[in-house]
Amino acid sequence: MQTTKTHVSKATINRIPLYYRAVRQLQQEGIRRIRSHRLSEIIHIPSATIRRDFSSFGEMGKSGYGYSIETLVKAFGQLLDVDSAEAMILVGVGGLGAALMQNNFRRNPDLNIVMAFDSDPAKVGQPVGGIPVYAFATLAAHLESTIHTAIVAVPSSAQTAVINQLEAAGISAILTFAPQPVACRPETTIRYIDLTSELQSLLYTAHQKQHATKMTLPKQKAR
Amino acid sequence: MQTTKTHVSKATINRIPLYYRAVRQLQQEGIRRIRSHRLSEIIHIPSATIRRDFSSFGEMGKSGYGYSIETLVKAFGQLLDVDSAEAMILVGVGGLGAALMQNNFRRNPDLNIVMAFDSDPAKVGQPVGGIPVYAFATLAAHLESTIHTAIVAVPSSAQTAVINQLEAAGISAILTFAPQPVACRPETTIRYIDLTSELQSLLYTAHQKQHATKMTLPKQKAR
Repeated sequence: MQTTKTHVSKATINRIPLYYRAVRQLQQEGIRRIRSHRLSEIIHIPSATIRRDFSSFGEMGKSGYGYSIETLVKAFGQLLDVDSAEAMILVGVGGLGAALMQNNFRRNPDLNIVMAFDSDPAKVGQPVGGIPVYAFATLAAHLESTIHTAIVAVPSSAQTAVINQLEAAGISAILTFAPQPVACRPETTIRYIDLTSELQSLLYTAHQKQHATKMTLPKQKAR
Repeated sequence: MQTTKTHVSKATINRIPLYYRAVRQLQQEGIRRIRSHRLSEIIHIPSATIRRDFSSFGEMGKSGYGYSIETLVKAFGQLLDVDSAEAMILVGVGGLGAALMQNNFRRNPDLNIVMAFDSDPAKVGQPVGGIPVYAFATLAAHLESTIHTAIVAVPSSAQTAVINQLEAAGISAILTFAPQPVACRPETTIRYIDLTSELQSLLYTAHQKQHATKMTLPKQKAR
C-alpha cells in the first residue's frame, strides 16, 4: 500500500494508533477479515468514520467484503513507522517524569526513553527505571545526533527556555505536559497534553450528559 | 449569556479550557477587549475557528469590534462550571497516580483529588501529597455521595473491573490512562488519555512535516 499524499486531518491522525492497536489484537486472535461495522463495535468509532479514514490512506480493501487484517496491520504499521525504534529523551525528572521513566511505554517496545535530564543536582546521577539522569546543562554533550524526540515534564515557568534549548540541540518532536503554547521553529512539532484541560472537558461533557438525562430521559446508545 | 442548546462538537468542547485560560490571563493583564485575530496569535488556533466556536455558545459580542474579555471569562467559566469545586477520587497509586496526587491540579484550585484507593495493602494508609489512601475494597464505605468523578491510573488488565465497581458506587465521570475501551453505562462519561497513542501521533505528524520540509521546502507558518 502506498500512502496517499492528500491532506489527512488531525482527528484522523489521532485515530491511527487506535486502529493499529485494534487490528494487531484481531490479528493475534487469528481473525483475517473485518467489516467496518464490526470494528466500530470494538473501538467505539462510527463505521462511517472508519470507512472515510481508511479510504484517505489509499486502497485498504473493500468495505462490503471486509478489510484484510493483514493489509491493515501492515498499512498502519508503516504509517506509524513502528518498525523503526524511536529513542527519546525526557526532560524534568519530577513525579510525572519519573513515572513515565518507570513505565517507559512498555506497551510499545519500539518507544524508548534512553536518557533523562534535570537541572536539580540532587537528581543528576540517580537513574530512574534504569535510565540515566544527566544535568540539563550537559544536554548537547550527551544527546546523540540520531535522537530527535523529547518528552518535556518541567514546570510551566521553565517550558519556553527548555524547548528553545532542545531545538538548538536538534530535537524536532516534543511531547509536553505544560499547557502554555510555545513559539517554536517551523520544523518543530509540539504536542501538548494538558491534564487539567482534559479533566475540565470530561466534567463539561459529563455535566451536559447528566442534564440531558435528567431533562429529557432520551434513549441513549451505549458507547 | 445563555448557553445555546445546539450541538457543540467534541473538538470545540476540548478548546473551551484553552479559551478560558487565555481570556483569564488577558483579564489579569488588564486587557478589556480582544479581536479573534489577536487571540489566534496567542493560542495558535485559527481565528475562523475561534469565531465559529464563540458563536456556537451564543452572543459573545461582535468580532469586528473585539470580544469583551469580561463576557468571555464569565461565559467560559459558566460553561466549565468553574465556580463549583469538584472533589474527585483517584484509583491506582502507582508512579503516575502518585504523581497526580502530588501535583493535584494545583493550577486549578477547584479541582481536588480528596482521597485515593489501591488494592495493594502496602500502599493503603500511606498518604501521598497529604491525600489519604484507602483499600479499594472499601470504596463504597469511604465514597461520599457528592463525589461523582474518578481518575483511574490502574494497569489495563484491572481497568474494566475497576470501572464497573466505580459505576456501582455512583461515579459517572472517569478520566483514565489505560487505553482499552470499556463498555460502560449510558450515563457514564469516560475520557481516555493514551500516552503511547499521543506519542505515536506526535511522531507521525513530525515525520510528515520533516518529509514535507525536505521534499518541497514550502513556506511554513510558525504555529
